[in-house]
Amino acid sequence: MNTVSIEKMDWVTYRELTEKGNRKIILPVGAIEQHGPHMSLNPDVLIPSYIGEKVAEKAGNMLVAPAITYGYKSQVKSGGGNFFPGTTCVSGSSLENYVFDVLRAYVNHGNREFILINGHFENSMSLCEAADKLVNQCRAEGITVKVYLLSYWDFISEETIAKVFPDGFTGWAVEHGGVLETSIMLKIHPELVDMSKAVDVAPATFPPYDVFPADPSWVAPSGTLSSPLKATAEKGELILDECISGIVHHLG
Amino acid sequence: MNTVSIEKMDWVTYRELTEKGNRKIILPVGAIEQHGPHMSLNPDVLIPSYIGEKVAEKAGNMLVAPAITYGYKSQVKSGGGNFFPGTTCVSGSSLENYVFDVLRAYVNHGNREFILINGHFENSMSLCEAADKLVNQCRAEGITVKVYLLSYWDFISEETIAKVFPDGFTGWAVEHGGVLETSIMLKIHPELVDMSKAVDVAPATFPPYDVFPADPSWVAPSGTLSSPLKATAEKGELILDECISGIVHHLG
Amino acid sequence: MNTVSIEKMDWVTYRELTEKGNRKIILPVGAIEQHGPHMSLNPDVLIPSYIGEKVAEKAGNMLVAPAITYGYKSQVKSGGGNFFPGTTCVSGSSLENYVFDVLRAYVNHGNREFILINGHFENSMSLCEAADKLVNQCRAEGITVKVYLLSYWDFISEETIAKVFPDGFTGWAVEHGGVLETSIMLKIHPELVDMSKAVDVAPATFPPYDVFPADPSWVAPSGTLSSPLKATAEKGELILDECISGIVHHLG
Amino acid sequence: MNTVSIEKMDWVTYRELTEKGNRKIILPVGAIEQHGPHMSLNPDVLIPSYIGEKVAEKAGNMLVAPAITYGYKSQVKSGGGNFFPGTTCVSGSSLENYVFDVLRAYVNHGNREFILINGHFENSMSLCEAADKLVNQCRAEGITVKVYLLSYWDFISEETIAKVFPDGFTGWAVEHGGVLETSIMLKIHPELVDMSKAVDVAPATFPPYDVFPADPSWVAPSGTLSSPLKATAEKGELILDECISGIVHHLG
Amino acid sequence: MNTVSIEKMDWVTYRELTEKGNRKIILPVGAIEQHGPHMSLNPDVLIPSYIGEKVAEKAGNMLVAPAITYGYKSQVKSGGGNFFPGTTCVSGSSLENYVFDVLRAYVNHGNREFILINGHFENSMSLCEAADKLVNQCRAEGITVKVYLLSYWDFISEETIAKVFPDGFTGWAVEHGGVLETSIMLKIHPELVDMSKAVDVAPATFPPYDVFPADPSWVAPSGTLSSPLKATAEKGELILDECISGIVHHLG
Amino acid sequence: MNTVSIEKMDWVTYRELTEKGNRKIILPVGAIEQHGPHMSLNPDVLIPSYIGEKVAEKAGNMLVAPAITYGYKSQVKSGGGNFFPGTTCVSGSSLENYVFDVLRAYVNHGNREFILINGHFENSMSLCEAADKLVNQCRAEGITVKVYLLSYWDFISEETIAKVFPDGFTGWAVEHGGVLETSIMLKIHPELVDMSKAVDVAPATFPPYDVFPADPSWVAPSGTLSSPLKATAEKGELILDECISGIVHHLG
Repeated sequence: MNTVSIEKMDWVTYRELTEKGNRKIILPVGAIEQHGPHMSLNPDVLIPSYIGEKVAEKAGNMLVAPAITYGYKSQVKSGGGNFFPGTTCVSGSSLENYVFDVLRAYVNHGNREFILINGHFENSMSLCEAADKLVNQCRAEGITVKVYLLSYWDFISEETIAKVFPDGFTGWAVEHGGVLETSIMLKIHPELVDMSKAVDVAPATFPPYDVFPADPSWVAPSGTLSSPLKATAEKGELILDECISGIVHHLG
Repeated sequence: MNTVSIEKMDWVTYRELTEKGNRKIILPVGAIEQHGPHMSLNPDVLIPSYIGEKVAEKAGNMLVAPAITYGYKSQVKSGGGNFFPGTTCVSGSSLENYVFDVLRAYVNHGNREFILINGHFENSMSLCEAADKLVNQCRAEGITVKVYLLSYWDFISEETIAKVFPDGFTGWAVEHGGVLETSIMLKIHPELVDMSKAVDVAPATFPPYDVFPADPSWVAPSGTLSSPLKATAEKGELILDECISGIVHHLG
Repeated sequence: MNTVSIEKMDWVTYRELTEKGNRKIILPVGAIEQHGPHMSLNPDVLIPSYIGEKVAEKAGNMLVAPAITYGYKSQVKSGGGNFFPGTTCVSGSSLENYVFDVLRAYVNHGNREFILINGHFENSMSLCEAADKLVNQCRAEGITVKVYLLSYWDFISEETIAKVFPDGFTGWAVEHGGVLETSIMLKIHPELVDMSKAVDVAPATFPPYDVFPADPSWVAPSGTLSSPLKATAEKGELILDECISGIVHHLG
Repeated sequence: MNTVSIEKMDWVTYRELTEKGNRKIILPVGAIEQHGPHMSLNPDVLIPSYIGEKVAEKAGNMLVAPAITYGYKSQVKSGGGNFFPGTTCVSGSSLENYVFDVLRAYVNHGNREFILINGHFENSMSLCEAADKLVNQCRAEGITVKVYLLSYWDFISEETIAKVFPDGFTGWAVEHGGVLETSIMLKIHPELVDMSKAVDVAPATFPPYDVFPADPSWVAPSGTLSSPLKATAEKGELILDECISGIVHHLG
Repeated sequence: MNTVSIEKMDWVTYRELTEKGNRKIILPVGAIEQHGPHMSLNPDVLIPSYIGEKVAEKAGNMLVAPAITYGYKSQVKSGGGNFFPGTTCVSGSSLENYVFDVLRAYVNHGNREFILINGHFENSMSLCEAADKLVNQCRAEGITVKVYLLSYWDFISEETIAKVFPDGFTGWAVEHGGVLETSIMLKIHPELVDMSKAVDVAPATFPPYDVFPADPSWVAPSGTLSSPLKATAEKGELILDECISGIVHHLG
Repeated sequence: MNTVSIEKMDWVTYRELTEKGNRKIILPVGAIEQHGPHMSLNPDVLIPSYIGEKVAEKAGNMLVAPAITYGYKSQVKSGGGNFFPGTTCVSGSSLENYVFDVLRAYVNHGNREFILINGHFENSMSLCEAADKLVNQCRAEGITVKVYLLSYWDFISEETIAKVFPDGFTGWAVEHGGVLETSIMLKIHPELVDMSKAVDVAPATFPPYDVFPADPSWVAPSGTLSSPLKATAEKGELILDECISGIVHHLG
């Protein structure tokens, strides 16, 4: 089987590909989180996994590790909040330690460069900490490791935003379950999107603070922070192309 | 989409299915681990996921959560050892805490019964600890939770073993990457098995102790603990049917 | 002594003020982090402490706890990076657990509402986790606790930004050690700012990913992400007034 | 005092014996766990301690460390379950960390080889993790350490089983508090066994899964998993002789 | 067997004794630590265990749990330091968590009062933390638990000191391995003391600070902090009698 | 600004002062704890901070880091107990890890010697553990670090005690909130002492054990363990002078 996906390889193939230590290992990190009534719970896993696979195929010197499925607790302002049924999240320390161990295992195989493709904003600091601990622990052992950490949406240009949101962009902050993620899912997993269930909501506005426990009334009942109605597979393709090219360009 | 797979549902559907608290949540727990040169690294994830899905479909009162992908460190006598390239494992505390958090999140959604389907022997004690902590923490909060923990192979009868190993069964201890797992994979993911690469090995024998660091010479170079050569999809189907029926029978 | 500062009170006074459980406890959380050659290492501590005190005085129903001094690891894109001499940071778990314990102690005194005023962007997720754990642990014990978490700069309006940056705002992302923080420090601690040492730097630009270990060449040698040259105490006052009023307005 | 027991030595004697770094340190690890109404709570501690002492005396190049007394939580299928009064167990992380620290202290004295003699099945994975962490931490510091991990019953041959169970062996799985452990205790600590209180029970049978919280009805009211009635000191001696010789043979 | 020692009881006997929840459970906590060339490494375990047993016998309403053997790191000023061969110590968190779990297990059996008899000064704060966590966790679950924490030497009166040290007492601070502990061991375990190896040393004097790593030159080469030469079994008996009576008097 | 206080420096100045690695870094560690109705909650922070600053100024080769504000749980016999409103304490592990991280950050800047000035007795073991872990971790990386740990009161001579307590010293054990701390605060922060609120109490006497939960009746209602009435700023000056000189003498 010709694949960039580590889990689909047998170990001898994997060893051959990695024994020179010059493959970059892509680790997609997602979450199980509600994305509105029109979409499955796993876009944050599927999107970085898809991007990772395409990046690896294009770059030629990368492999994709099995994704981290469960991510850090959804926050109201970025993911609707951790109180929605179906939003299934782990604590920061659990995520950090689990990811750290996974990365360390790949280091033990001889790999030295990693690209964490994050699909869930709230994961950022846990991934940052896992990466930092990995680098420090390895350095103490005389091993030089490099970890790139990125969120795929940071590779989307203003030009693309203008095309995706011809009526004006309401901002990254409210893109949870909106046009952006829905468009990508329509492109890569249309079977997991049911636009007939999509609910039109005004872009969310929030007070300039957070509160714990979260206040469900801050979020639209549908769970998305903006309307997904104008999502299309074409927009998804446009976004994905740019993200994939961008990552390859910068880190290939 | 009509599915038992939680991650493929939208959250409103999930809420409807779980709001009475009478769904059992199946959590498959696997590992990324070498299974010989003839098979991918993910049988321990794919097999319990497949079984979980079939059990849930048959039982009618269960849902399947996204699997835990990375498991506890492979041991020489049960999985060949943690030193094989491709075998990518996490520590006991990381696995325990990650699984604990995932289960706790499902409890927070209102679910009260869980079935952990383990696909990787070495996970057992970490899952046991996660389950025990969950039950105790919930009890302290006045929540009654029940966790069933099983390894799918414990549902295989001697009759089936006799059929699968007509020339004599060399024992559970050496079934890593052998006829049993290979047969199941031939049934459910033939594209991830390449029997032309399968290596014939005598059933492994070990001294009556373990040693750390592991001694690679204890294991056949191919990584399996017995020969996969006589694996067939038919045997896989036989085994799966029995496991699936058995789990439904006991826990449905 | 008439004060809102908890640490300056004797315990009997503190008890009298808090025994009805209707005081909100403000906890400033900062960091020891370089802010350019023109400023001390502690703006992230002093600013939220100052704001906290003024908010408490104005609101009348709040007390200010001693600040958390050392914060989470400085990141290149928000604080210049953790490699600068003087930048003295703790891990996420240490910060989270330390803050959690402090909050829990205040709960044990009978307090039920908390306002975390964050002065260091990188602290956000650790504070979020501490707050979430506190709320959950207390709830399990039948205690209802509410934690507000804010970063003071989120209370600055576009109008104020327009006044503070008459030549155009280069964005929040590069405000580390720039006009905003320097202006505030010129207002509240002029003795800790030496504008003669201020270095003019162009607003930092970064690639759309992070890298570990951090690459020092991404940051100007002075350590700030934009130029502090146009900072004035008047601008500082303007900003502070708005933050203080805003917090009182929302949470008083 | 001429002894292999470290705790009975003065430190100067211990230093003389270990300063070449060529002594193997035996660490017995047990548990406080019910073993039926006819036996004390400490067989899992006393048996590996006794074996350790005899092995050390016979091998000549080993010393015995004070035993770890409290072990991992008793499981229903192997130890009757953690709900019996008297069964007094610790969590996996506590056991792992405590054992790790003890081993690390012996490494700091200059010792490089360890033999963990386990007397309580449930300890296995915690000991495995402690050993693995020790080896890795030491390796990172340039110290080569070797840890052997064994459960004494794995050294019992089929021949001995045939002699001990002339009427047929009902299997290792149900040997908790049965003929095997009782016979050994009758040999080494007859004062802690009262055969007049021994209860005859049929060998336990269990469903092919575990459940949390444990279901006490799965276990005989006496707490043993098989009948201890046919235990004798002679059988105990036979078993011990084989275990002791076997360990010396393999690891001496 | 008529005993107060929990580990020597069968579980049915233990249940009968504890099922009313009115037994106080004594937990001796010690250390493996050098006590000079004239004494074994385990006085800190044996002394509190002996005292515990005698207290329980005298009080009539107490039982003695198996001792915690390995204690917190020996400090130079109280135990000679953690660098002596044979001094085998664990970290604070490991001790705290291990003791916590043990106490929790006894609570789960229905016990509500505990007496921790400490034999190793350095354990104090870890035991304090374990006790505090236990009390808090249980209170959160509606269980009222009481933990007494004592070091046996705190029950020795000035009168006894005057008798034991007729030539003047050089202070508690230097009693490590001196007349006090040696006398007790001569009384309870004379076979573990060899007075012919006892080394006369002047009472240790230390600078008013500690240093890490420890400076071995601060301690006499023999490892004791004062001279054991005048130790006698009679003095040991005197001391023990007072400690035992005192503990029964206060906590019986 | 000419200062020894790290937090008041800009990072370039700090770098210049520390780049040779020959500065000793003083870290004051305190607590927020009631000290009677006549005094603020922060003497344990302010006193070691003041001493640290004076020591650094006098020694010339030291810098003072921002203090650790919140310390380990107040104990009845040394600080009145953790149940007083205003006494705001953290757990041992939180303190240990937080201090460890802070020290590690200073090591990363190139510093190699540290002086921990403790102002709160209960912190001792957590600081000891943090120092020990730091030294060991650094040694494993080939970095030689030295940590001095002191409590300032250990530098007070009997002569000074005789002057401060002309009517007889009632012992260190009961000095919480008494003449000693009050005198120092009258000297360095008279605005935080109100002698008109000082309560005369007899020196506390305690049973020879501790109990958890603490028994408030063991402590005087005012919270001090002895009477502060005879405190004067002159006594404070005398004490401080001796502590400062002593520390410089020993560690300068």
